[in-house]
Amino acid sequence: MKLATLRDGSRDGRLVVVSADLQRYTPAGAAAGTLQAALDDWTNVEPRLRQIAEELGLGMVAGEPFDPAQCMAPLPRAYQWCDGSAYVNHVELVRKARGAEMPESFWTDPLMYQGGSDSFIGPCDPVLVADEAYGIDMESEIAVITDDVAMGAGPEAAADRIRLVMLVNDVSLRNLIPGELAKGFGFFHGKPSTAFSPVAVTPDELGAAWDGRKVSGELLTSINGDPFGKPRAEMDMTFDFPQLIAHAAKTRPLGAGTIVGSGTVSNKLDGGPGKPIADGGAGYSCIAELRTVETINDGAPKTGFLKFGDKVRIEMLDGSGGSIFGAIDQQIAKYSSPAGN
Amino acid sequence: MKLATLRDGSRDGRLVVVSADLQRYTPAGAAAGTLQAALDDWTNVEPRLRQIAEELGLGMVAGEPFDPAQCMAPLPRAYQWCDGSAYVNHVELVRKARGAEMPESFWTDPLMYQGGSDSFIGPCDPVLVADEAYGIDMESEIAVITDDVAMGAGPEAAADRIRLVMLVNDVSLRNLIPGELAKGFGFFHGKPSTAFSPVAVTPDELGAAWDGRKVSGELLTSINGDPFGKPRAEMDMTFDFPQLIAHAAKTRPLGAGTIVGSGTVSNKLDGGPGKPIADGGAGYSCIAELRTVETINDGAPKTGFLKFGDKVRIEMLDGSGGSIFGAIDQQIAKYSSPAGN
Repeated sequence: MKLATLRDGSRDGRLVVVSADLQRYTPAGAAAGTLQAALDDWTNVEPRLRQIAEELGLGMVAGEPFDPAQCMAPLPRAYQWCDGSAYVNHVELVRKARGAEMPESFWTDPLMYQGGSDSFIGPCDPVLVADEAYGIDMESEIAVITDDVAMGAGPEAAADRIRLVMLVNDVSLRNLIPGELAKGFGFFHGKPSTAFSPVAVTPDELGAAWDGRKVSGELLTSINGDPFGKPRAEMDMTFDFPQLIAHAAKTRPLGAGTIVGSGTVSNKLDGGPGKPIADGGAGYSCIAELRTVETINDGAPKTGFLKFGDKVRIEMLDGSGGSIFGAIDQQIAKYSSPAGN
Repeated sequence: MKLATLRDGSRDGRLVVVSADLQRYTPAGAAAGTLQAALDDWTNVEPRLRQIAEELGLGMVAGEPFDPAQCMAPLPRAYQWCDGSAYVNHVELVRKARGAEMPESFWTDPLMYQGGSDSFIGPCDPVLVADEAYGIDMESEIAVITDDVAMGAGPEAAADRIRLVMLVNDVSLRNLIPGELAKGFGFFHGKPSTAFSPVAVTPDELGAAWDGRKVSGELLTSINGDPFGKPRAEMDMTFDFPQLIAHAAKTRPLGAGTIVGSGTVSNKLDGGPGKPIADGGAGYSCIAELRTVETINDGAPKTGFLKFGDKVRIEMLDGSGGSIFGAIDQQIAKYSSPAGN
């Protein structure tokens, strides 16, 4: 089952059920008006949504043409967004580039940050940034949406609470991050509004690409139409989603609709850093990682961050070449404060 | 106007209007079912809530007896909770105790962390922690709830977006924090579910105790009935609420219902660290600060963190001795994971 939230002028949008091929949609209104409402009462609402999806799939309901540009984030605002760094390769590379040892504990204790969840942006919304000098970067990731999770839940219990899967562009402002992290309290300005894929899908929709813990497949990132990354999401994922959820729930319960991210998807190559796609590698899911590899290889980064007007596309295809989640397809644009600010 | 959220079995509870003396309440249902719904449409809902408050105040509506124990947090879950460290004295002391210089920039650039906002607890709910060894501590704070705030809003624009004021117990697990901050991504396990006062009040309700930027008055904290802190909230607040909101909105907009905290309220004494109330000082708003002062004075902390069964009370009184926000009045209790976790 694939679910999306269409813009309707309200803060939470309108929940719709989307056909597996992303061609058509039909309102979910009879079952739940919003995705958060569905998640708040998933046991009762899910069967009704699945019935709508079945009717749409069988053509019993004609549906309307589905346009990702009309999508908000599946959850336009959420009560929690926390993002792990499950691909420890990415973390190790970044440390290596600045000559720092990565603590051994990073292989057993997940890194995770608490993100802002009140102002998500849709898959085709512009990424608005006041200043290119902030160092604008994407981070292509996968995320799950959970049901309620009890405090102290272990990975097995956590696995049963995964309800939906989607893609993420965890937009990052690289040049604000070092100063911010040096203050000691984690990210804030360096992580502006996050974007999500047009649809969120139930795990069963992924078929063999979901083993209950990880998504299998290439996560495709392109910049201005040029392939930039195609790492495999199931490879080098040190912490799977149930482990990340259990980590998040260690000292407090998680509310229904909690979004848990994988962190930047990153593959090693022959035990070392990856290569660009043009050089036969799997490429990267963020510019920062490429710059890190450039620093390791050549002593300094040479690829610049994103500029106003640049376009980023993030997508994942099924075995037949169909888009699973639809594409995050965004343009970087200059933000100007409204008058009187 | 004073607003509270009563437990009714739903996730967001039931919004009620409470009399100024906190003795009576009446449902706000005709105007808005939940506090988030009111904040989502404040321009239209506020006048209707004020009319209900006026009728309650004049006795035109009898109302029901108000019992803080029936309260959830005013926002039982929120789309954003970010907490500043506006009382830089507190930060400076903590650094001094471990022999570290505080960067000069901390006096001009606020420290702020992104908190979890999906599982707040009510003012009289137990603070559930799995292990006393986590180092259980309170942090007595003041917070504001904002309307929508545009990205890049300055302090003047931000000041106009403050809708409500309340008290906070930013529960902290001290012994988990050093290792967590050392990882570089900020707080996560060290900040479990946060508690808020029974009522949130509109700024006008504070009268002369609100100057548009800060709350004036003693923030009273007691542990097991013994006075522990009574620092004045308007003193030594390096960053006021409009400055904290503007900081939070630097690279992204804030959604209606964003909660911005002051950080632990802390006063200097004669330019140096404060003293316990028993020694003629204003005391402290968290045990960690007392331990810091003990370390500075005696080389080591002697006061232990909270134990299961301990009670923490946080309150602020008006000029006549009446409770402004009601009291956060909580007991620390051992959490046991449910079976099957």
